[in-house]
Amino acid sequence: MGRIRLADISTRAPKDFDKETTKAKTQEILGQLDELQNLLYAESKYAILVILQGPDASGKDGVIRNVFTSMNPQGITVKSFKTPTAAELSHDFLWRVHEAAPAKGMVQVFNRSQYEDILITRVHKWIDDDMAKKRMKAINDFEKLLEEHNNTQILKFYLHVSPEEQQERLQERIKDRTKQWKYNENDFAEAKLLKEYRSAYEDCFEYCNDIPWTIVPADQNWYKEYIIASTLLATLKKLDMKFPGLKKSNQGY
Amino acid sequence: MGRIRLADISTRAPKDFDKETTKAKTQEILGQLDELQNLLYAESKYAILVILQGPDASGKDGVIRNVFTSMNPQGITVKSFKTPTAAELSHDFLWRVHEAAPAKGMVQVFNRSQYEDILITRVHKWIDDDMAKKRMKAINDFEKLLEEHNNTQILKFYLHVSPEEQQERLQERIKDRTKQWKYNENDFAEAKLLKEYRSAYEDCFEYCNDIPWTIVPADQNWYKEYIIASTLLATLKKLDMKFPGLKKSNQGY
Repeated sequence: MGRIRLADISTRAPKDFDKETTKAKTQEILGQLDELQNLLYAESKYAILVILQGPDASGKDGVIRNVFTSMNPQGITVKSFKTPTAAELSHDFLWRVHEAAPAKGMVQVFNRSQYEDILITRVHKWIDDDMAKKRMKAINDFEKLLEEHNNTQILKFYLHVSPEEQQERLQERIKDRTKQWKYNENDFAEAKLLKEYRSAYEDCFEYCNDIPWTIVPADQNWYKEYIIASTLLATLKKLDMKFPGLKKSNQGY
Repeated sequence: MGRIRLADISTRAPKDFDKETTKAKTQEILGQLDELQNLLYAESKYAILVILQGPDASGKDGVIRNVFTSMNPQGITVKSFKTPTAAELSHDFLWRVHEAAPAKGMVQVFNRSQYEDILITRVHKWIDDDMAKKRMKAINDFEKLLEEHNNTQILKFYLHVSPEEQQERLQERIKDRTKQWKYNENDFAEAKLLKEYRSAYEDCFEYCNDIPWTIVPADQNWYKEYIIASTLLATLKKLDMKFPGLKKSNQGY
């Protein structure tokens, strides 16, 4: 497979997807997810890590609200990665990420993630290509650790938004009083760098794809939510989980 | 270099080391360490991780008391790794270790460490050789992460104690009222497995030596403390640290 070019990939649902039918399907999937999450928690054998990445206003918060709110809060946590704190900057870049890794039985959603350390940092040239390569290697090792040593299923979603849709949403953040809290004074300056961000994402897809990315057309929320919910459902179904019997005493490690 | 055979390595100081002279040297080193630790903290460019491993009663607690107590507590923390908690067991084995990794400017001492996950676990056959190999690889990747991405200097010490000295110390734990709190009902059963533990340690030296181990003859506390203090001093001196000037504002990552 050649290098993915985001500019060549549609940000919209395929023509044969109807909005209302798809929304109904999503609701049905959410019901199944609820049951499977209960089993996941009871068995506590697997962990689920959902990584949400995408440009500003690509709809990460909306996915969390519309896909994950229906889950039992005892079994799901959301971690938003913001500008690193002083304490976080005093550690390697994966330190704060590892701390937030899901325990077995849990679903953890990352709103932004370790990938910011090879996205915003590259677009603004805070790190050079050599450091980026090293971080990509470290990210691959890290994801393998979670997968191999804690049965963590990692789902990586890129929310693919068009520049037009992004601009519209950012304008809304200014105009809509209920959305103004989301506005950041850098938003428009960052949006001008969408091409550079896409290029940095394309490198993620090329070099950090041991655990594969799903590119989610994200201009229409209903389609984006359907893709994420159905991908999650397929992942949970594949796990072949079962309710555990009486617990044996734990001898040690 | 061939495989290290602990049975062939002396647990005692070389003949030309005199107890009183060596103790005086150690005290002088501790004075230098105090100054260098202050610089380490001020510059906050490097982190120091000291890993103390060794069989029961090999003197890990004594090293912490006699070598590290003289340091500014604002710049040093000690983490003791015990039997993993339920929360820790719900994660990959490096999760709790990563959380305890030192911030830049800090000295972190590990009383036991990630290596227990390929020591006690192997001796008691809780994991097989294939899993041990995977964990060794994960440990190497992890240590490289700390080193490469947080300027962490990792010092790994194996406290090498003879079976006779170990037995004597364990007897003291029973007889000496001030040491009884350290006694664990498994201690003598574990001590019978010293040969098996040594073999597991030899594997650590063979497969997890990217960051090298120091084997410390540990039957005599004064020699053990001298070796650790002088190794730490040499490490700090090599860093070529300097006091920082006025801080520039931090632009981001």
